Amino acid sequence: MSEPRRAVVLLSGGLDSATTAAIALHQGFELATLAFDYGQRHRRELDASAAVSQALGGRDHRVVRFDLRAFGGSALTDAIAVPHGRAITEMGHDIPVTYVPGRNLIFLSFATAYAEVIGADDIFLGINQQDYSGYPDCRQEFLDAFIQTANLATKAGTQDGRRLRIHAPLIQMTKADIIRKGLELHVPYAMTWSCYEGGEIACGTCDSCLLRLKGFAEAGISDPIPYANATH
Amino acid sequence: MSEPRRAVVLLSGGLDSATTAAIALHQGFELATLAFDYGQRHRRELDASAAVSQALGGRDHRVVRFDLRAFGGSALTDAIAVPHGRAITEMGHDIPVTYVPGRNLIFLSFATAYAEVIGADDIFLGINQQDYSGYPDCRQEFLDAFIQTANLATKAGTQDGRRLRIHAPLIQMTKADIIRKGLELHVPYAMTWSCYEGGEIACGTCDSCLLRLKGFAEAGISDPIPYANATH
Repeated sequence: MSEPRRAVVLLSGGLDSATTAAIALHQGFELATLAFDYGQRHRRELDASAAVSQALGGRDHRVVRFDLRAFGGSALTDAIAVPHGRAITEMGHDIPVTYVPGRNLIFLSFATAYAEVIGADDIFLGINQQDYSGYPDCRQEFLDAFIQTANLATKAGTQDGRRLRIHAPLIQMTKADIIRKGLELHVPYAMTWSCYEGGEIACGTCDSCLLRLKGFAEAGISDPIPYANATH
Repeated sequence: MSEPRRAVVLLSGGLDSATTAAIALHQGFELATLAFDYGQRHRRELDASAAVSQALGGRDHRVVRFDLRAFGGSALTDAIAVPHGRAITEMGHDIPVTYVPGRNLIFLSFATAYAEVIGADDIFLGINQQDYSGYPDCRQEFLDAFIQTANLATKAGTQDGRRLRIHAPLIQMTKADIIRKGLELHVPYAMTWSCYEGGEIACGTCDSCLLRLKGFAEAGISDPIPYANATH
């Protein structure tokens, strides 16, 4: 019997990345999960990431620390206010204030380095073009260009016939589809954290909470986490 | 009079990056220098980086901290011995043990984020294909693929007609040519640090010292820094 193949999975601890990890597992990969501590406003999602990795039987969970606050430039790392109570239709058409410059480029670069070190050829990430059409680094054409670059940058892509591959299984799915898929795969959604704020319980009014709540509503399922101000 | 354009310059503190910074300055750019504290074996090069930036009138010097030791995989971040006393002809044909997986990919991703935040369109780095032909991420084709990816990943590349550009002015130069060019531009080579070891003075026998000494010898100039074991 051959060894299970390992995949590096970017696991932020949110709903999308947890579902992505479950999909990788379902496809037969052994999970090497990777989270980033990059000066985000709260650590709730890092705790969620470690808990979800363990719940899914991740073999290895690593946290890479770096500080984007040195650069400034986004509501998620600066003191700029995160928007609350927006209509869903207001989201996703412009580049939002929560955009972190180069974030997925940086995340995927670290994932590439980690894949190289552990001999994995597959990288999974939970980006989604539907909800985040305003983020330039959530598009398929960015991923296609990235993986070509990553293969040129590494031994994996230049020696012994290996090729790195990138998987973004959620990229065209709606939030409701993601949740339905995740429930089928027993994703522990109660452990996930999506809220942009770092309160005791999720705020229920930031863009991320609103998208999550709308997804559960559309899937006809109630979200297992409590909310401070649920409007759905 | 128009404002001087800013360029992000990757400045490790070594001979090549210092020369690259001087070239960017000579081309009329205002320098925003960037160094990385990534678990390398010594901090000598970080001190050199800050000193060189200041000496060249860099407007802004930032250090991004992250830890590649979490991944392992290279003599420059692990406890594996750096090779000493090799013939120059032994270098640069295979991927050396000092290769750090994904390093330039990670460095350039941070440079892209920083360029995005400060509104710079130009990124300079001192990579050199001649000396480091064994490193997959020191090739022009990697840079070409990278900048295409970076433009897809950022606002700069997707809005308001801006395009990020990457400059690797040393990529085809020999070490002797680099040194001649640098002296013409008054690069403070006495402040630079190239040695892979972190001793009081440069070892003179690691690959990096050997290449540097050979460069000065070929340029017919004496290296202003002292060496513990100079064989040239």
